[in-house]
Amino acid sequence: MKIQLINGPNLNLLGIREKSIYGDSDFNTWLEQLRQQYANHQLDYFQSNIEGELINKVHETGFSYDGIIINAGAYTHTSIAIADAIAAINTPVVEVHISNVHKREAFRHKSMIASSCAGVIAGFGLNSYRLALDSFIYAQ
Amino acid sequence: MKIQLINGPNLNLLGIREKSIYGDSDFNTWLEQLRQQYANHQLDYFQSNIEGELINKVHETGFSYDGIIINAGAYTHTSIAIADAIAAINTPVVEVHISNVHKREAFRHKSMIASSCAGVIAGFGLNSYRLALDSFIYAQ
Amino acid sequence: MKIQLINGPNLNLLGIREKSIYGDSDFNTWLEQLRQQYANHQLDYFQSNIEGELINKVHETGFSYDGIIINAGAYTHTSIAIADAIAAINTPVVEVHISNVHKREAFRHKSMIASSCAGVIAGFGLNSYRLALDSFIYAQ
Amino acid sequence: MKIQLINGPNLNLLGIREKSIYGDSDFNTWLEQLRQQYANHQLDYFQSNIEGELINKVHETGFSYDGIIINAGAYTHTSIAIADAIAAINTPVVEVHISNVHKREAFRHKSMIASSCAGVIAGFGLNSYRLALDSFIYAQ
Amino acid sequence: MKIQLINGPNLNLLGIREKSIYGDSDFNTWLEQLRQQYANHQLDYFQSNIEGELINKVHETGFSYDGIIINAGAYTHTSIAIADAIAAINTPVVEVHISNVHKREAFRHKSMIASSCAGVIAGFGLNSYRLALDSFIYAQ
Amino acid sequence: MKIQLINGPNLNLLGIREKSIYGDSDFNTWLEQLRQQYANHQLDYFQSNIEGELINKVHETGFSYDGIIINAGAYTHTSIAIADAIAAINTPVVEVHISNVHKREAFRHKSMIASSCAGVIAGFGLNSYRLALDSFIYAQ
Amino acid sequence: MKIQLINGPNLNLLGIREKSIYGDSDFNTWLEQLRQQYANHQLDYFQSNIEGELINKVHETGFSYDGIIINAGAYTHTSIAIADAIAAINTPVVEVHISNVHKREAFRHKSMIASSCAGVIAGFGLNSYRLALDSFIYAQ
Amino acid sequence: MKIQLINGPNLNLLGIREKSIYGDSDFNTWLEQLRQQYANHQLDYFQSNIEGELINKVHETGFSYDGIIINAGAYTHTSIAIADAIAAINTPVVEVHISNVHKREAFRHKSMIASSCAGVIAGFGLNSYRLALDSFIYAQ
Amino acid sequence: MKIQLINGPNLNLLGIREKSIYGDSDFNTWLEQLRQQYANHQLDYFQSNIEGELINKVHETGFSYDGIIINAGAYTHTSIAIADAIAAINTPVVEVHISNVHKREAFRHKSMIASSCAGVIAGFGLNSYRLALDSFIYAQ
Amino acid sequence: MKIQLINGPNLNLLGIREKSIYGDSDFNTWLEQLRQQYANHQLDYFQSNIEGELINKVHETGFSYDGIIINAGAYTHTSIAIADAIAAINTPVVEVHISNVHKREAFRHKSMIASSCAGVIAGFGLNSYRLALDSFIYAQ
Amino acid sequence: MKIQLINGPNLNLLGIREKSIYGDSDFNTWLEQLRQQYANHQLDYFQSNIEGELINKVHETGFSYDGIIINAGAYTHTSIAIADAIAAINTPVVEVHISNVHKREAFRHKSMIASSCAGVIAGFGLNSYRLALDSFIYAQ
Amino acid sequence: MKIQLINGPNLNLLGIREKSIYGDSDFNTWLEQLRQQYANHQLDYFQSNIEGELINKVHETGFSYDGIIINAGAYTHTSIAIADAIAAINTPVVEVHISNVHKREAFRHKSMIASSCAGVIAGFGLNSYRLALDSFIYAQ
Repeated sequence: MKIQLINGPNLNLLGIREKSIYGDSDFNTWLEQLRQQYANHQLDYFQSNIEGELINKVHETGFSYDGIIINAGAYTHTSIAIADAIAAINTPVVEVHISNVHKREAFRHKSMIASSCAGVIAGFGLNSYRLALDSFIYAQ
Repeated sequence: MKIQLINGPNLNLLGIREKSIYGDSDFNTWLEQLRQQYANHQLDYFQSNIEGELINKVHETGFSYDGIIINAGAYTHTSIAIADAIAAINTPVVEVHISNVHKREAFRHKSMIASSCAGVIAGFGLNSYRLALDSFIYAQ
Repeated sequence: MKIQLINGPNLNLLGIREKSIYGDSDFNTWLEQLRQQYANHQLDYFQSNIEGELINKVHETGFSYDGIIINAGAYTHTSIAIADAIAAINTPVVEVHISNVHKREAFRHKSMIASSCAGVIAGFGLNSYRLALDSFIYAQ
Repeated sequence: MKIQLINGPNLNLLGIREKSIYGDSDFNTWLEQLRQQYANHQLDYFQSNIEGELINKVHETGFSYDGIIINAGAYTHTSIAIADAIAAINTPVVEVHISNVHKREAFRHKSMIASSCAGVIAGFGLNSYRLALDSFIYAQ
Repeated sequence: MKIQLINGPNLNLLGIREKSIYGDSDFNTWLEQLRQQYANHQLDYFQSNIEGELINKVHETGFSYDGIIINAGAYTHTSIAIADAIAAINTPVVEVHISNVHKREAFRHKSMIASSCAGVIAGFGLNSYRLALDSFIYAQ
Repeated sequence: MKIQLINGPNLNLLGIREKSIYGDSDFNTWLEQLRQQYANHQLDYFQSNIEGELINKVHETGFSYDGIIINAGAYTHTSIAIADAIAAINTPVVEVHISNVHKREAFRHKSMIASSCAGVIAGFGLNSYRLALDSFIYAQ
Repeated sequence: MKIQLINGPNLNLLGIREKSIYGDSDFNTWLEQLRQQYANHQLDYFQSNIEGELINKVHETGFSYDGIIINAGAYTHTSIAIADAIAAINTPVVEVHISNVHKREAFRHKSMIASSCAGVIAGFGLNSYRLALDSFIYAQ
Repeated sequence: MKIQLINGPNLNLLGIREKSIYGDSDFNTWLEQLRQQYANHQLDYFQSNIEGELINKVHETGFSYDGIIINAGAYTHTSIAIADAIAAINTPVVEVHISNVHKREAFRHKSMIASSCAGVIAGFGLNSYRLALDSFIYAQ
Repeated sequence: MKIQLINGPNLNLLGIREKSIYGDSDFNTWLEQLRQQYANHQLDYFQSNIEGELINKVHETGFSYDGIIINAGAYTHTSIAIADAIAAINTPVVEVHISNVHKREAFRHKSMIASSCAGVIAGFGLNSYRLALDSFIYAQ
Repeated sequence: MKIQLINGPNLNLLGIREKSIYGDSDFNTWLEQLRQQYANHQLDYFQSNIEGELINKVHETGFSYDGIIINAGAYTHTSIAIADAIAAINTPVVEVHISNVHKREAFRHKSMIASSCAGVIAGFGLNSYRLALDSFIYAQ
Repeated sequence: MKIQLINGPNLNLLGIREKSIYGDSDFNTWLEQLRQQYANHQLDYFQSNIEGELINKVHETGFSYDGIIINAGAYTHTSIAIADAIAAINTPVVEVHISNVHKREAFRHKSMIASSCAGVIAGFGLNSYRLALDSFIYAQ
Repeated sequence: MKIQLINGPNLNLLGIREKSIYGDSDFNTWLEQLRQQYANHQLDYFQSNIEGELINKVHETGFSYDGIIINAGAYTHTSIAIADAIAAINTPVVEVHISNVHKREAFRHKSMIASSCAGVIAGFGLNSYRLALDSFIYAQ
């Protein structure tokens, strides 16, 4: 399977930023692990802090990949535009969060994009990405 | 690992009720499959339509099991009492939903219990339970 | 026709409780009258103060009876779980209220279950049940 | 008994308009049936799309008739003036709706006039009017 | 001075309706008194239950009279259209109420038309009209 | 094409009322211009301050005309009844406003009738009507 | 009659402050006029910027005077304590405002004290006090 | 006096659960102490996690006991049904809470049942029950 | 123990004002009783209608007394400043109310100061003060 | 005239995405048609999924073009920044939408940018752009 | 320059109260420092816990001083009366806060008085006062 | 000290746009002045209309600079992503606004980013930036 991982704003600081919430592994080390564990799948990775670039990537991969895993960070709670992008494509999308957003501020309890996604996985640290990968494999 | 699966109101009708939302497999068949796939784990199952009996089961297993997977059905959106039960125990709890609740009525977008749980998995059909099981295994 | 009458919380106190709102006849006397007036129909009766037992009864009769008449009492305004039970079955359900709930506190103006029912009848004292019975007969 | 039936805005289009919601019988045919079924009662009928004319009719009949059956259509949800008219008269009024308004848009869930009426009947098609008639007969 | 008095919905029932709120004098008797007390002023009177006819009367007198006194009844709380009519004319308008609307239901606390009027007088029984007349005289 | 223009409350004062918002041309002069510019179309005109008469006109023309252009004035923001009338007919309806309602009070930002119309045009002065006419022509 | 006039916060600046809203006469000059016009009545005057002192004055005069006229200024919109003071006494109280508060900021549209008063008069400049005095005289 | 103590959901875990909020004494030890301190009163105790069983106990004791002390736990904030049960009986009921609910999450600030009770005592640890007992004694 | 009792606005009228809510004993008689019943404790008393004077008294006694009992009257529902004063001192504070505020207007259901207090006691008439005293004694 | 057309997020997928809402013509084909129909006007086109690039384009053309037509897509409902950009320039801007946004989700009913625009046109498919062009021509 | 510093409720406890929020310097020491640093300016100081006394001081200095620096403490969030006082005077007023109010409870995020002030400075400890002083100097 | 100044959307138009709100100096001229006044500090400047580029700059300087001064323009009120970026870095950030945002539209009263900043300065024209600089110097 060909899977696109998309990380949104501030997730480039993983392992640096607010370690009590996000843990102290950086994403690249984790990505290497994932690629080894899922060696017979293609895992592409993209990160941007710019909302529109996330949309561009959704468009670019949304008609040819087998799945998209998106952690839209703070845009999760404000972006109708990303939700529209996900609704416009054919590839199924899974929304993931590293932390359990429901334990945090009230404005993080509402996802604008969840209703456009196939499913949501939140609160399992970096394993949230792994479970999302599994979800595509189990759904085959 | 010793894992308790708890299903809340109306989930006894799985495979009978609203098949367009919940699919047409009944839960027991699915449970058999799970038990075979996770043969070296103990998977106990409980279903009740009574909120207080769900609380009782959380209390009963919440100090000795390795994990609880709960699909609290409609009580997800109204029960502070179940949330309190989950907050009171030691065993980590994962909230699951068969359907993507964010695609349904607005009152299903808010979970009262999510902030007491370790994480949330929603929208993957019966595979939501399997991913929850995996989450306990990955977390070891 | 085979009709199930279901009364929810506190309706076991009819004729005892708040007579200015509910009148002073107790439900059993009334039930006898109804059974005589509708002698060629089967009228089964169930009352419980436990939300989940109301759900159980809806499930139990919801695939074989010709109609269910439910006065869910206070659960009318809080129970998504009962609404889901009604939505899950085949038998048509009519929601009834003895008092005109719209003359009472604001939190009694909203019914969580009405959208799952065929229709609603409120404000006619115990005659609300009789009109509900008629509605099934007229609909034949 | 002398009963006034009052239909509000757009109900002159019954049998023409939105048949999936309102059915395809027109009101006059139905009225004929009712008059035959309730031959020893006087059933007067009035329809207007003008809010103030509905108020006029409530005033006109509200001190001499035995009952008023009102389907105020969309004014149900916006008219304090009709509610005031009903509260000002002596004749008991029953609010009826052809469709189950609770299955429709949220703004149709709230009735401004229900708290001034004796009772409410909704969701039984044209039989809602018949049940309202019965309610006056049963209450005698 | 040439003053137009305009009464809105249900105020034709004054002296008949809800006497505990509105008192038991009918408006015509009162009007006679007023006309005698203010003999050197022209007091014209209009009542309608139809919102649009109230607007018509505002238009008709709003460019030639010295003052308009309006008790818009229930339309006070719902009619942007009457507010627009008052804003569109040159004659100053005083909003009056017989009862103290702030002692009644919450939906009567908000006036849609007050911001288009010169002032508001409420709670003095039929004397509210007299005080409104005085306000025009004092303002000369 | 046979097109009905319907103007709601206070629009009879165009050219007289609040010229800073609505401009100083009166509607009849404008209508003459339109009829000359669209000489091969039939443009019928109706204005009323009475909500129910607007509904009557929608019913009367809504099954035989090619298009209806409605400026419901203040009723735009309060009338479910007009919305229902538009939803009940076959003729497509375009909602127009002379001013840009979004620059005015917050209660003018919400249209109750827009969701029943084919489209909305606001803010172009009397040209809003002309653009609405064009929209019917372009859609042919 | 023995009447107490009470002015609340910032009304000591009348004639100095925001003349476009409050006019340019100071209150003492006006009070002299009133006392001459109503020579056979006793008009006592009190002003304070301190909420509790307004309450003290209400208590002090509220069991012996024939009427209280209160312009509670900004405390009108926030003070449950003044409302309670007015509700606790026997003397009837009339709430007055110099400006038409409904033309100003939304937080000035709601009066916390109006429901404890006999009536409300707003928008007539300093004549609001005169009309309030008249209201006591007319009510005798 | 004959007093019924009723504890709601999760209070069976007292002394086990969230000790920073609820302290570390278990309820039975405390109950023994109370019974010794109030030796000439009968103190009956009931705990359940099931909402309807709390209602049943209220019914059962609500016509014969001298007082009921209820700590409805999380149902305090959601149960209209328990509130109705309390309103339906004759025995006075005192609502107690171990913790000061106003220092906790916002959804714990609102009690659905308080308006049906005689009074409320919150924040004194297990002494809240003792003060409630005193309240019955002082009221004799 | 050295205890300060503080009564807020309008409580100087106890025994005079709204006897159906507050009973007909005046506070001084009651205070004498309390002082006799609790003869080995020092009970100081202060009442003011001025919010800032209540704050001053909280400051003055809040670092040296063993307890403060405050009935802040209407300021309970509006005063962040009193809440801040209570939070700033060392002495524990108990909030009391004579009436059960939850049976009264909705704006009396929310206490701004409760979260700064140790506990809350409401609805036991003047015995609320006695129970508050007991709470300090039991807590020793 | 020199007109800038600006399309916001996801509108690059026109003709590909959600055809039931947006139709199946792609924008470039349509643009060609427009340019032919309005041959003596200069029509420049810009599309971006990046909010800030839309702002840049508004700045760039907003002081020299004769008109801007903007379909801000999902940013319509969330972007104060685009609204500020439009308010900051001299060129008049017309907001257009292909679909009738009022028939879609509630969050699409509110435009953040409409109050900064000259007018709004919505619901006419790609003809919305043509009507916007006409509006500039008619306004000359 | 002649500058008035005004501190509102509880700020007399600075250095004593909640040191984690407000630091441990008392205000008088700080004031001495300020006076030395700004030796050629007159800095007058006033503190009161009484809302109306703050208003009095604003009136007293608001027509003759060059600037007022106000930290209205908790009254910031509730006092329309202080806001009105500031709006009524000529002297420019700067609102300051020692702590960053936006990091604290939600009810501290809204300032009722900010819209009447020239500017707002919050979060810089006692330096907030110094920056406010600078703002008057820079503005000269 | 090394200080980064960051200006958000539309602030590139300073001196051009809405001069009544923002004054008529352009930012570069002002920046030159600042650099001269604070000659022994390094003042770096960045402006972008793209939300994600503001985040990038916060990341880039947030671990090495001594302070960041951010005027996030309209993103102040909508961007959780910028707030997260500020919370993730070590450098203290001061939020500034040229105008007093509390005098403008209600949606500008709420800052999403203020709770992540050290402090807020608003309303002093371009001097807001200077005061922010001072705040870093005073805090040393």
